[in-house]
Amino acid sequence: MSSAPGRYAESGVFVCFEGGEGSGKSTQSRRLAEWLTGEGYVALLTFEPGDTGVGKELRRIVLSPETGELSDRTEALLYAADKAEHVDTVVQPALDRGEVVITDRYVDSMLAYQGAGRALDVGEVEEVARWATGDLRPHLTVVLDLEPSDGLGRFDERDRIEGESLDFHQRVRAGFLRMADADPDHYLVLDARDDVDSIEAAIRAAVAPLLAQAVHG
Amino acid sequence: MSSAPGRYAESGVFVCFEGGEGSGKSTQSRRLAEWLTGEGYVALLTFEPGDTGVGKELRRIVLSPETGELSDRTEALLYAADKAEHVDTVVQPALDRGEVVITDRYVDSMLAYQGAGRALDVGEVEEVARWATGDLRPHLTVVLDLEPSDGLGRFDERDRIEGESLDFHQRVRAGFLRMADADPDHYLVLDARDDVDSIEAAIRAAVAPLLAQAVHG
Repeated sequence: MSSAPGRYAESGVFVCFEGGEGSGKSTQSRRLAEWLTGEGYVALLTFEPGDTGVGKELRRIVLSPETGELSDRTEALLYAADKAEHVDTVVQPALDRGEVVITDRYVDSMLAYQGAGRALDVGEVEEVARWATGDLRPHLTVVLDLEPSDGLGRFDERDRIEGESLDFHQRVRAGFLRMADADPDHYLVLDARDDVDSIEAAIRAAVAPLLAQAVHG
Repeated sequence: MSSAPGRYAESGVFVCFEGGEGSGKSTQSRRLAEWLTGEGYVALLTFEPGDTGVGKELRRIVLSPETGELSDRTEALLYAADKAEHVDTVVQPALDRGEVVITDRYVDSMLAYQGAGRALDVGEVEEVARWATGDLRPHLTVVLDLEPSDGLGRFDERDRIEGESLDFHQRVRAGFLRMADADPDHYLVLDARDDVDSIEAAIRAAVAPLLAQAVHG
């Protein structure tokens, strides 16, 4: 596998939102896309898993409680397949056009959920995820940090992943924070309990300096 | 990823059939299973992709012409996910019980079709496949070798893989032969055009010395 130090797109801007369940990723990613569009940029709002044809089927398999038990490696490889298709057919083409791509979850979710959360070796999971994505990295990853018991409380019906133990979700949270700590130039960690407008403003401030690489619509 | 030299089960016997379309793998694997059962061994006849719950869905996705284009990496990762589930829930448990496991296709098919056949780096595809299977290797792989134009001629309706070009299938054939050449102790290459009974006899002769590791039913 490639041991390269990561590949950053030279056109377009790639922003990723990560965090646990109920941390407000979809609200903030949508708000960021709306702001960028208002500013005249071409913004593509996307997500993992499931934002391609085959990805929709994989999302159903990995999240539906009807799937039942899966081997940990099977689960990780299904997420990796979703990422490969997402990068090759959605993310990279939009970056090549100079767009701002905003994704709700990416490689870090796989490392946190299938690596830190499950019993797999995180380094091996990372090699699979990097191979799947051609080692494409976000220019900025926003981690919306939340104590799991706060986030999970917002759901009545939980999917296969949400239904995991609190301990599992605490390992996931620690995984996100460790990745952010290791690469502060490419991460912004925000307290998901802050008010929505303050979080939005902090994200805009971090994204603004990156926009020189983006095209206007 | 692991760079270990491969892991061979210490109980049970793991036999794999490989080869192109129409080479007679299913006939010969069935005949081997029937012979072993008649001799009093517990034989499990299985196949890839698709012999698990999630595997059935993955088989449909990778083989159905309705799926259309998939990124090469996506396809490889879907095959790898099928293998992970197959090894963890079917193959390894049967070997642990001391059974003879006979599989129609395994890792070599992924290396030949998604490595040699597609434009992917074979070494990287192999690392993913080895990770997916915990590097479990067959004690014996039987390659039923056939010129692709002979084998493909037997089909009226072709699936996504069968419908690839003759050149693709020739690269696949060369891939199988290269793997067999590199590890003659674990491979038996037979001419698929020989008569069915002679092929069957040659396979029995190669499997017989391995059966000391197998339980009687």
